[in-house]
Amino acid sequence: MKDELRDLYIKKLGKALTMEEVIIEHLPHMIKAATNPDLQTGLTEHLKETRAQRARLTEILTAHDGGAEADKPFTLMVETAGKEIETITDPHVRDALIIAAAQAVEHHEIGRYGTLIEWAKELEDTDALPLLKETLLEEKAADTKLSGIAEGGILAKGVNEMAAHH
Amino acid sequence: MKDELRDLYIKKLGKALTMEEVIIEHLPHMIKAATNPDLQTGLTEHLKETRAQRARLTEILTAHDGGAEADKPFTLMVETAGKEIETITDPHVRDALIIAAAQAVEHHEIGRYGTLIEWAKELEDTDALPLLKETLLEEKAADTKLSGIAEGGILAKGVNEMAAHH
Repeated sequence: MKDELRDLYIKKLGKALTMEEVIIEHLPHMIKAATNPDLQTGLTEHLKETRAQRARLTEILTAHDGGAEADKPFTLMVETAGKEIETITDPHVRDALIIAAAQAVEHHEIGRYGTLIEWAKELEDTDALPLLKETLLEEKAADTKLSGIAEGGILAKGVNEMAAHH
Repeated sequence: MKDELRDLYIKKLGKALTMEEVIIEHLPHMIKAATNPDLQTGLTEHLKETRAQRARLTEILTAHDGGAEADKPFTLMVETAGKEIETITDPHVRDALIIAAAQAVEHHEIGRYGTLIEWAKELEDTDALPLLKETLLEEKAADTKLSGIAEGGILAKGVNEMAAHH
């Protein structure tokens, strides 16, 4: 039943496109709400990467005559996180929450791209495979970078430690 | 502002409790819908683990006078996945989708527990730390096991390959 898996694969690619679009829409608000300069820089770089990831998905979807598919749970997750961030008054606690929200998004993406890569292999979508793998590596790198900022880098005291002790 | 981070930490623990409860509610339906015996066994074992994870969270929350907090986006994610699984007629494609849904949940959990561990460290919640770390290891192991079932184990042809080629 190659067709039923292929249909599902194209639908999931369309949901991934929505996922990237939701992130592109909301990331600027998170960057504005952030205080730690490493966090601001990291998120700004990731916004650029996300635009490239969206372009890759559009390329794959065009080859399959597919398009964006709604993803209500993910959209609600990002909207809820955005509202929660607005309620925090302490800038260091807010930074810690922004990192938590961004890492929740990264992990969600890592799961989704992991499945897409497995299915692309099975369906022998060899054009899509390197593009999906490139994005997955970027998402994992973004998550690692955020952990580094949370735990404390070389230049600045970690965001979490500032939130707990300042 | 240790207090503001602590409040947020207890709230996130309460959301994690809801997350585990939603999984305990929905996992039996996924087990029933699965065809591959390795997948059924893997999910059944993970259901047992999830009950232990819920007990750990209840223990941590009791120590902080906290309780369950609603998590609408996650609940909607699991409900949507459940409905999607019901629409698939081919048993091998359904197995592939069940694995995708379960891995999406695992990645979500890995992200959430990662944040909780970081915050527990900063807040010096030394009682909670080993419990949260134990759960995180279980979630990562469950994700790896699901990847193994999808890619094909020793005993059975992989679920994804069956879905694509049978």
